[in-house]
Amino acid sequence: MNFTSDNAYGASAEILAALVAANDGTVPSYGGDAITARLTARFCEIFEREVAVFPVVSGTAANALALATLCPPYGAVLCHQESHIALDECAAPEFFTGGGRLVLLPGEGGKIAPGAIEAALPQYRRGIHSSKPSVVSITQASELGMVYRPDEVAALAACAHTNGMTLHMDGARFANALAHLGCSPADLTWRAGVDALSFGATKNGALLAEAVVFFGDARDFEYRRKQAGHLISKMRFLSAQLEAYLKDGSWLKTAARANALAQRLGEGLAGTAGAQLAYPVEANGVFVRLPNATVARLRQRGARFLDWAQPSDGRTLIRLVCSFATPEEDIAKFLEAAR
Amino acid sequence: MNFTSDNAYGASAEILAALVAANDGTVPSYGGDAITARLTARFCEIFEREVAVFPVVSGTAANALALATLCPPYGAVLCHQESHIALDECAAPEFFTGGGRLVLLPGEGGKIAPGAIEAALPQYRRGIHSSKPSVVSITQASELGMVYRPDEVAALAACAHTNGMTLHMDGARFANALAHLGCSPADLTWRAGVDALSFGATKNGALLAEAVVFFGDARDFEYRRKQAGHLISKMRFLSAQLEAYLKDGSWLKTAARANALAQRLGEGLAGTAGAQLAYPVEANGVFVRLPNATVARLRQRGARFLDWAQPSDGRTLIRLVCSFATPEEDIAKFLEAAR
Amino acid sequence: MNFTSDNAYGASAEILAALVAANDGTVPSYGGDAITARLTARFCEIFEREVAVFPVVSGTAANALALATLCPPYGAVLCHQESHIALDECAAPEFFTGGGRLVLLPGEGGKIAPGAIEAALPQYRRGIHSSKPSVVSITQASELGMVYRPDEVAALAACAHTNGMTLHMDGARFANALAHLGCSPADLTWRAGVDALSFGATKNGALLAEAVVFFGDARDFEYRRKQAGHLISKMRFLSAQLEAYLKDGSWLKTAARANALAQRLGEGLAGTAGAQLAYPVEANGVFVRLPNATVARLRQRGARFLDWAQPSDGRTLIRLVCSFATPEEDIAKFLEAAR
Amino acid sequence: MNFTSDNAYGASAEILAALVAANDGTVPSYGGDAITARLTARFCEIFEREVAVFPVVSGTAANALALATLCPPYGAVLCHQESHIALDECAAPEFFTGGGRLVLLPGEGGKIAPGAIEAALPQYRRGIHSSKPSVVSITQASELGMVYRPDEVAALAACAHTNGMTLHMDGARFANALAHLGCSPADLTWRAGVDALSFGATKNGALLAEAVVFFGDARDFEYRRKQAGHLISKMRFLSAQLEAYLKDGSWLKTAARANALAQRLGEGLAGTAGAQLAYPVEANGVFVRLPNATVARLRQRGARFLDWAQPSDGRTLIRLVCSFATPEEDIAKFLEAAR
Repeated sequence: MNFTSDNAYGASAEILAALVAANDGTVPSYGGDAITARLTARFCEIFEREVAVFPVVSGTAANALALATLCPPYGAVLCHQESHIALDECAAPEFFTGGGRLVLLPGEGGKIAPGAIEAALPQYRRGIHSSKPSVVSITQASELGMVYRPDEVAALAACAHTNGMTLHMDGARFANALAHLGCSPADLTWRAGVDALSFGATKNGALLAEAVVFFGDARDFEYRRKQAGHLISKMRFLSAQLEAYLKDGSWLKTAARANALAQRLGEGLAGTAGAQLAYPVEANGVFVRLPNATVARLRQRGARFLDWAQPSDGRTLIRLVCSFATPEEDIAKFLEAAR
Repeated sequence: MNFTSDNAYGASAEILAALVAANDGTVPSYGGDAITARLTARFCEIFEREVAVFPVVSGTAANALALATLCPPYGAVLCHQESHIALDECAAPEFFTGGGRLVLLPGEGGKIAPGAIEAALPQYRRGIHSSKPSVVSITQASELGMVYRPDEVAALAACAHTNGMTLHMDGARFANALAHLGCSPADLTWRAGVDALSFGATKNGALLAEAVVFFGDARDFEYRRKQAGHLISKMRFLSAQLEAYLKDGSWLKTAARANALAQRLGEGLAGTAGAQLAYPVEANGVFVRLPNATVARLRQRGARFLDWAQPSDGRTLIRLVCSFATPEEDIAKFLEAAR
Repeated sequence: MNFTSDNAYGASAEILAALVAANDGTVPSYGGDAITARLTARFCEIFEREVAVFPVVSGTAANALALATLCPPYGAVLCHQESHIALDECAAPEFFTGGGRLVLLPGEGGKIAPGAIEAALPQYRRGIHSSKPSVVSITQASELGMVYRPDEVAALAACAHTNGMTLHMDGARFANALAHLGCSPADLTWRAGVDALSFGATKNGALLAEAVVFFGDARDFEYRRKQAGHLISKMRFLSAQLEAYLKDGSWLKTAARANALAQRLGEGLAGTAGAQLAYPVEANGVFVRLPNATVARLRQRGARFLDWAQPSDGRTLIRLVCSFATPEEDIAKFLEAAR
Repeated sequence: MNFTSDNAYGASAEILAALVAANDGTVPSYGGDAITARLTARFCEIFEREVAVFPVVSGTAANALALATLCPPYGAVLCHQESHIALDECAAPEFFTGGGRLVLLPGEGGKIAPGAIEAALPQYRRGIHSSKPSVVSITQASELGMVYRPDEVAALAACAHTNGMTLHMDGARFANALAHLGCSPADLTWRAGVDALSFGATKNGALLAEAVVFFGDARDFEYRRKQAGHLISKMRFLSAQLEAYLKDGSWLKTAARANALAQRLGEGLAGTAGAQLAYPVEANGVFVRLPNATVARLRQRGARFLDWAQPSDGRTLIRLVCSFATPEEDIAKFLEAAR
């Protein structure tokens, strides 16, 4: 019973098979191959418009490179105070932008709202004494398992654009958000005003593959990727993963599966004595407060998960993440152990 | 007949199989897995001492991260004017160091000698008006297919250390150099004074896997790797490639094979009318001047390779790279077409 | 009646005279002159030990260069959330460190305490996912006009050093702090554990002159200063300002004068109907809540000052800064207008 | 007899007087003062068009900030291999751009020509493997004392613009160039296609004052200046220097004087036995080869100057710099000692 992270599982069979299949023959390196060409076309299809697509190997690379493209060294990126870029990427945005500042905003469930942006801006409106607000970055789904609806994204985009900023979406769990909402990739991104998307795949079944997608000018992104050591020579091995990921809606099916398991887990725990869901379960993560004794018992029975916070009420807030490959029986086993 | 690059070929069967085998089960992410632990031990064994090992996904990342660890923003890296870091990495060293300067040195066959370093230093000895000479970086094998012997490395290390610098080795083709020399990895690196090594695998059969190896203090390298987006979450997939690469001397066998093919190609061409080898063939690359008509004919017959330079004598200097997977018959076919 | 900033006034007569006197003759540039040599000796005298001294032209330069020397690109600087480096220097620390992160701490009166540091550290103790805590930076006197006593500095230094960090002091108003405490420069800095000091002079009578003082290894600071364009060619003009500033305790007298005026202003306002001092007046700044009507009347009568915050109780928190050159009569005039 | 550098002399009486005069009263800080406002208007007048003007304290700051504005981290700056930015600024351009590469070009007398640019570009035309050529930077007058005519500047600008680059002029000795040519500031800059100018004053009589001038979009330059610690709080003291510098053509008179002294020195030396001018004397520097015995005798007689190079013919190439304040009699004394 491993609920520690979507990264604890390996890759899906389909993606692994595609990787193996991509190995045949000689092809041009650095993205000049046929798979990469097909991949770009496929992304345009999925997003219903022309987009610029750049495969990279990690979510941190995707986010930091995208932010460096959108935010100058003297710029500020406004984001949630518990976002991945704020807490888990070792100041990669500051390094890649060469001096950018993250402005940390509060918000329920890991989501920010236009109000939080408006509240933060005055301090950054005193001319050159503060960084220039340049980008709003949101996480979809959020680090706390919640999902922005298209209208929420649109409101944030409007707020960003009105204030001279662009909107970046960290979509490490973009598929989970889409699976939850049932809307189209286009509706959740550029139609709502998103300028650049970190398109995740690793957490949802790839070995190591993400993509940065620009809906407008990619502003020499390919130079930044190369200079950062993130242009892979045997690019076919990245592109093949993403192609398999997107084939026949595979990505949405694996995400829907992970979401459904989390849903079941959340519902089961909601009915457990002393348990309390911290946030609605919308994507593939469950955040629940459990009595410390229950937490200890779960660990004794072999369940693995992260302690997220330690309130002072004799309970622990734990995080449970379901993945594309979490065995169904683990849900039942966990729920039984929790009772 | 594809001689364009070692990157034109995919991965070796052994490495691919190891990657597939690594997919089973759940494991800790970010390098906490058993394969990564074994890999570190394996590197220590191979180098006959304790070393710090950090897998990354590209040679540019390996070089730039190693150089940023060794060279401050106000420092200079002395390297060959035709080295990969100078010509082919989009100023990654400058970006990762945050301001470092490359000092470009001449040298036969892509190799530098202590004399070139000594000649360049006086200009950088005027105190703070120039960057502080901090690192000497050499490429093993060189970009022109030549190999530094251990005594040559030792002379460069002595020169570097005497002048307050460290010695970095870009070993994108380290295996080819070893296979040529027949010496031990230890003799070619730390015993000769190398401080840090970019250990290549991608060009010699991996999908995407290199490692940075420090023979002394790694100086928080792991933070730099993370901040640069080069710490892979599902690290087992990198480590598995490197483990298979090193298993039973596999890496040296594939390198020896590539070298042998290049040798045969070089010898065959040396006997061809109008042909002239630009450098001795020591690793897996052949640099040869051929009459333009011959070059055109080779292309017509399906051979692929790079034009390296265009002397004004009716000939073209071309580069031919043999890889672990180049078919043996391609050598004979190429030589026949060249006649 | 200009209380907007210590920067609103020009330079003291002594410093201006020294600048003019420094103009004679030819001297070596870039700090090779006699005045600069004398200045270093003078600093050693004042701090009762050997120190490394580097004049620069702005407080932002002093802070950012000092922090870049102490904090790597992947490091974090812990500081007060209302400190000058956090709010007023356009992310200069992030730019100069090449990726450093500021961790913003709460604290009364612009001062931080060891408890705030200890509370912030756990989040930065998860290995490489977060920036490495590298420096604690405190502002002396604080942005809200309060002063750290030597024992408070020592407690912070102990906390910093215990946790593998260094202690930096932003002493833009160092003279005001000393004048308030009456202790020696040594007691307030290296004897209490300070590693590096931004030594201010501009706010207290210089035209443009600050100095970075290291009590230990200056770690190639002179390279960083040069690379940042902060090494002045005609260095005598910076050094002469600082020499005059330090002559015969001049710096402490001007600071004491400014403090005394602020004290008188604070005391006068404390007795005014509806007024409330936000913090004790210790240095040269007065932060006071006044009824909005009073604030409006003061402005009508020609007083200039900054609105600092707008509480919702019909009052405004204003900042009043006294300088070495503020006319004494302005205090009486202001107090009269405030009644 | 001090001919070591234009920086060996202090400031002109006019500029010093203006600095002293600027000291009166309280004024808004950070450039909100009246002198700075007048200065901008004055620059527009002098350049016969609207320009954006930003005073800074050093030539290195002016150059590096201008280049960072024009060149992205992945960009290249093409410049002469003996230019000040290449040899004397401790890689400030690399630091400020966050990774930019200098491409060093040859050229007679420290000047580059379009041919050298065209020859260097092909290597930077292989897509993302090399830095993106972004800026051509020329030095006016050159480090070897020669001057670009307006038509030469125009040819370089055309070459830069045709190739997607901008043209930056390092005008540390811009006044000397103008005085030599007798043309207008507009003719030598924007009318010839210059995009940004580092406008020098320190070498020609200021204490510490330069300005960056943009003829087009200044692209948030003011943020970069602030973030780099180069926005002076008491800005009036910078602006006053520049205002006095420009008053009544003062800057051109002092430059013409320095040029004339250099001219006389050059002519005198040309007629000396064993002497040979290395370059025509156009600005305020004289580069001359003298017999080693002569060089030794000059030093014995109290002359100070730099050894520039040591040819193997028993002579030394020395540099002699005349300044706005070099005593006329020093020329005669030097020439007499040289005979």
